[in-house]
Amino acid sequence: MTDLTCGVDVGGTKIAAGLVDEAGRISGASRVPTPAGDARALARAVAGLVRGLEADLAPGDRITGVGVGAAGFVDRTRSRVLFAPNIAWRDEDLRSVLEEEAGLPVVVENDANAAAWGEFVLGAGRDVDDLLLVTVGTGVGGGLVLDGELYRGAFGVAAEIGHLRVVPGGLPCGCGNLGCWEQYASGSALVRTAREAVATGDPGSSPLLERAGGAVEAITGPMVTAAAHDGDPLAVRLVTDLGRWLGEGIASLTAVLDPAVAVVGGGVSESGDLFLDAVRQGFREQLTGRLHRPELEIRPAELGNDAGLIGAADLARQRPRT
Amino acid sequence: MTDLTCGVDVGGTKIAAGLVDEAGRISGASRVPTPAGDARALARAVAGLVRGLEADLAPGDRITGVGVGAAGFVDRTRSRVLFAPNIAWRDEDLRSVLEEEAGLPVVVENDANAAAWGEFVLGAGRDVDDLLLVTVGTGVGGGLVLDGELYRGAFGVAAEIGHLRVVPGGLPCGCGNLGCWEQYASGSALVRTAREAVATGDPGSSPLLERAGGAVEAITGPMVTAAAHDGDPLAVRLVTDLGRWLGEGIASLTAVLDPAVAVVGGGVSESGDLFLDAVRQGFREQLTGRLHRPELEIRPAELGNDAGLIGAADLARQRPRT
Amino acid sequence: MTDLTCGVDVGGTKIAAGLVDEAGRISGASRVPTPAGDARALARAVAGLVRGLEADLAPGDRITGVGVGAAGFVDRTRSRVLFAPNIAWRDEDLRSVLEEEAGLPVVVENDANAAAWGEFVLGAGRDVDDLLLVTVGTGVGGGLVLDGELYRGAFGVAAEIGHLRVVPGGLPCGCGNLGCWEQYASGSALVRTAREAVATGDPGSSPLLERAGGAVEAITGPMVTAAAHDGDPLAVRLVTDLGRWLGEGIASLTAVLDPAVAVVGGGVSESGDLFLDAVRQGFREQLTGRLHRPELEIRPAELGNDAGLIGAADLARQRPRT
Amino acid sequence: MTDLTCGVDVGGTKIAAGLVDEAGRISGASRVPTPAGDARALARAVAGLVRGLEADLAPGDRITGVGVGAAGFVDRTRSRVLFAPNIAWRDEDLRSVLEEEAGLPVVVENDANAAAWGEFVLGAGRDVDDLLLVTVGTGVGGGLVLDGELYRGAFGVAAEIGHLRVVPGGLPCGCGNLGCWEQYASGSALVRTAREAVATGDPGSSPLLERAGGAVEAITGPMVTAAAHDGDPLAVRLVTDLGRWLGEGIASLTAVLDPAVAVVGGGVSESGDLFLDAVRQGFREQLTGRLHRPELEIRPAELGNDAGLIGAADLARQRPRT
Repeated sequence: MTDLTCGVDVGGTKIAAGLVDEAGRISGASRVPTPAGDARALARAVAGLVRGLEADLAPGDRITGVGVGAAGFVDRTRSRVLFAPNIAWRDEDLRSVLEEEAGLPVVVENDANAAAWGEFVLGAGRDVDDLLLVTVGTGVGGGLVLDGELYRGAFGVAAEIGHLRVVPGGLPCGCGNLGCWEQYASGSALVRTAREAVATGDPGSSPLLERAGGAVEAITGPMVTAAAHDGDPLAVRLVTDLGRWLGEGIASLTAVLDPAVAVVGGGVSESGDLFLDAVRQGFREQLTGRLHRPELEIRPAELGNDAGLIGAADLARQRPRT
Repeated sequence: MTDLTCGVDVGGTKIAAGLVDEAGRISGASRVPTPAGDARALARAVAGLVRGLEADLAPGDRITGVGVGAAGFVDRTRSRVLFAPNIAWRDEDLRSVLEEEAGLPVVVENDANAAAWGEFVLGAGRDVDDLLLVTVGTGVGGGLVLDGELYRGAFGVAAEIGHLRVVPGGLPCGCGNLGCWEQYASGSALVRTAREAVATGDPGSSPLLERAGGAVEAITGPMVTAAAHDGDPLAVRLVTDLGRWLGEGIASLTAVLDPAVAVVGGGVSESGDLFLDAVRQGFREQLTGRLHRPELEIRPAELGNDAGLIGAADLARQRPRT
Repeated sequence: MTDLTCGVDVGGTKIAAGLVDEAGRISGASRVPTPAGDARALARAVAGLVRGLEADLAPGDRITGVGVGAAGFVDRTRSRVLFAPNIAWRDEDLRSVLEEEAGLPVVVENDANAAAWGEFVLGAGRDVDDLLLVTVGTGVGGGLVLDGELYRGAFGVAAEIGHLRVVPGGLPCGCGNLGCWEQYASGSALVRTAREAVATGDPGSSPLLERAGGAVEAITGPMVTAAAHDGDPLAVRLVTDLGRWLGEGIASLTAVLDPAVAVVGGGVSESGDLFLDAVRQGFREQLTGRLHRPELEIRPAELGNDAGLIGAADLARQRPRT
Repeated sequence: MTDLTCGVDVGGTKIAAGLVDEAGRISGASRVPTPAGDARALARAVAGLVRGLEADLAPGDRITGVGVGAAGFVDRTRSRVLFAPNIAWRDEDLRSVLEEEAGLPVVVENDANAAAWGEFVLGAGRDVDDLLLVTVGTGVGGGLVLDGELYRGAFGVAAEIGHLRVVPGGLPCGCGNLGCWEQYASGSALVRTAREAVATGDPGSSPLLERAGGAVEAITGPMVTAAAHDGDPLAVRLVTDLGRWLGEGIASLTAVLDPAVAVVGGGVSESGDLFLDAVRQGFREQLTGRLHRPELEIRPAELGNDAGLIGAADLARQRPRT
């Protein structure tokens, strides 16, 4: 008999779920579109996924709990989502609703926290006690494992590292502030700088424009990283600049947190050595006290898109605090 | 019979020591100049202070351990000082040397960490689990108590918060980087901006110059805070600007750490409400997600200069990890 | 018999025209809405205004030329508008079309250049040879009179001072760049910072919100300057910050241009001493080589909204270069 | 019979002089160390050079005037040096003293202004009316020719372009301000960033360190540009970063001045295409209104170290204003 937990990753467009065993192996992965509407619609969709997984269980296996990773501020009790820009729940007691719908113990966690936990227990950080996860996607997300524990902060909203201010009077951020790190170091920043370069007639911009079929607005992050991978000089410069911004921010966070490893995940991080080398370069140049301290390692994430699902499932395996 | 521990605060110019009971009461405080020379000279000076305190013990009292707070990077085992700009020990096994000299169990801690612990157990943070200490002196120092534990980082050098980069391409810092927070938010920054204002003939600068006896280079931080307290418009502006830089940085740290309180200590913080109000103003303007999250309180430190000594003594009361 | 010239000020929403004598006295001022559509429609509207003024001429008076001030890049020959964000002409030979429609010699000039010339010949700069005009409105515009001549640049597009970069990686500007001065020192910047302060719950923001009838988006620049004038602390801070940004930029421009006076015009500049004092403060703090050089005077504009009309009329009085 | 003028270039360490004919040909160049001491000692040294040149004149030739280019603020009447950081004259009527000593009409000009004039009449800008000279040496100097005239500013101290503020709160400058352009775009900036990279153990820094014989403090600008020329990746990056800072600043100046060409001179500019390409790249990325305006050309200087001497001599050929 195997005890499994169900990991759920709730994003703005789709909900992914799967069963996870103690070793992090996923079985029965499935997904549905994120329903529009209220928190109860969302809870029902999640419960539906869980029941589907339950129906397909091998004889003797059982599901002991559900872990949900969701974008947004999750409160300290891991029950409520306080604030989530793109999802329909707000200050709902999501855990109660889900437990009622699914008939299982539930734990709710911020998605980046769940991913950090996943990389900590089963991924790139499984050999250390202190880990900083940095995910480079639409924004810059983060998760912290400190002294072997997921660190949530006093109010449950720690590790919003993308909102470190890195440029006073800088680019406006969706959060309402100016100069947040994610405006310079995210996939969106890569797209923005690429489109700017092309729109203002950078002489090296024709290969990138060609990839986008001649339309500036069609340029995407993966196009830029692919072009960089192929050696296109403009794309190389854009990816390198992005990496330096990311590495410099990790240096600031290291001054504060002194983790053993920084794990870099998210789409852009999969673009390879060029990007990670630039991250390491930016980090090294900005690390305070370098040469006088042990230095953290910057490693690529290992679990890819499954990190959040695996991490959430593992958190459900532990007894949730109440 | 009372079990006391000895708290020691090693600074660049003097060493202070005292006996501390479980309630944080200090007795027998004494101090000697910091000896020039090697680590052993320092250890002997500390041991001398401890023996002096031992000699004056009330009948039935005893000293069960020594806690030392010292500027610099202290390694994870709390034995060695890896790097300290102004003190003669470097990568010495200070704990062994001191235990040998003093004949008592010793624990070594970074001075700001010790102060954070002091404020946590007996000062401004005694009602919370997650505390950020920010000390505004020559530089900006910091200490973190997270989930009720002193957080040291993977390599023992966490909470070097003064070296958060706040201005890309900014002012050079003693650490070798550009744009570190402490270049904008420390007592030294206050002195620098005051001297600049006076040297370049700011029309409001005569009261400040008068306090300094007419010599720009004689202007000190306490003069500026005193002038601000008396309502001198230039000094008010300088102290307010400083407070805003400090508050804005605390907002960045809060995005990462989400503490329950930020305790502001150090000389400048004693200049009163004007400064703290500006800190709170800068904090509020920069806090990401404000209005959607519980907000930390910014409080003045309560233990003053004794925070490090009290905190180190309390850390010695606990069993040191090895 | 008096020779008059017609000054025309073409804005995004209205066209103002008037007759101007040698002493700068305006008569017969009239205005019409800026027509939508093409350059010819605009030229016809201007010609209509000119004919209306002609019809009302006193006996013996005559109109000898037309000077048009228009937002946008005007080419070196003062005929074409190369680029104007909000107006329907683009690279049209406006002078030819207008001369044909109006039957009079025409000169076209950038509106801020015309205003600078107006202040130079008849306003705040009539006693000097080198003048920098800074207009603080929706953006920050500028005009230069150097060695007694209007300076247009090699291609006719000099004095776009609002696009000096003052913050690397800063706020995005309508021009496509980041960190342009006008994003920090214009009336729009004042509105933006005021709305941000109110939206994020600045404790001092209720008076401002009240002026706006409770709606953040209803806050305007004049509301903020009026509140500042009445001593509202938040508004005072916002106007002071704006003034410092403006003065600091004028210091940079002075390093390059060394004018005898900087004339500050535009809506915000009319808010009085508080603003201008902050401009002067920011200027003084940033002027390179201060105490070792004669310092320019910063003066309020004298001609108000008529500066462009008067200046354009005066430029038409001179023989246009071809 | 040929009328020659004598050009003199007064630097912090040496004084160079030579005779210059109308076509800019130099003959009889000679130099002496800059004397320590007062202005009269300097004037005597210059007069000595002039007399030496006079003694060697070909039969029938004569010297009609002396043009002196000197570092520092020169007043509007081209007589006095108001402020010069490294030279012993200060607010002396240098022209009178020199005319007395040399027995010839004298004109004094800022050295970068003189060089700008040299490039304008006989060098890289001889085909245009509006020229911006940017010299990249210890600092960043500049000179302006506008509408065919040397532009001195209302008080004679225009074109101090190195003191444009490009980073608020940035690196301290010798002028007392923070964030001046020359702290990021000069030869000194190149040396600083190179030494920092080496000192902090940049993994690519060994070739540079080798060139310096193993001593970080022995690294010079020419070493870095030579290494960049040889393809050393770290040096290439440093020179490229420098060029981008320079080009971005030229873009800001172009918004204000709209010159026809920017001539880039000084030691670093001689390092070749890598540097100039980076300057052009930075310029293009930051030019406001690009694609909607004629663009200036960025050209290397043509007269090298002789630009100031040739320009000063040519200015002496014209009647000085008084």
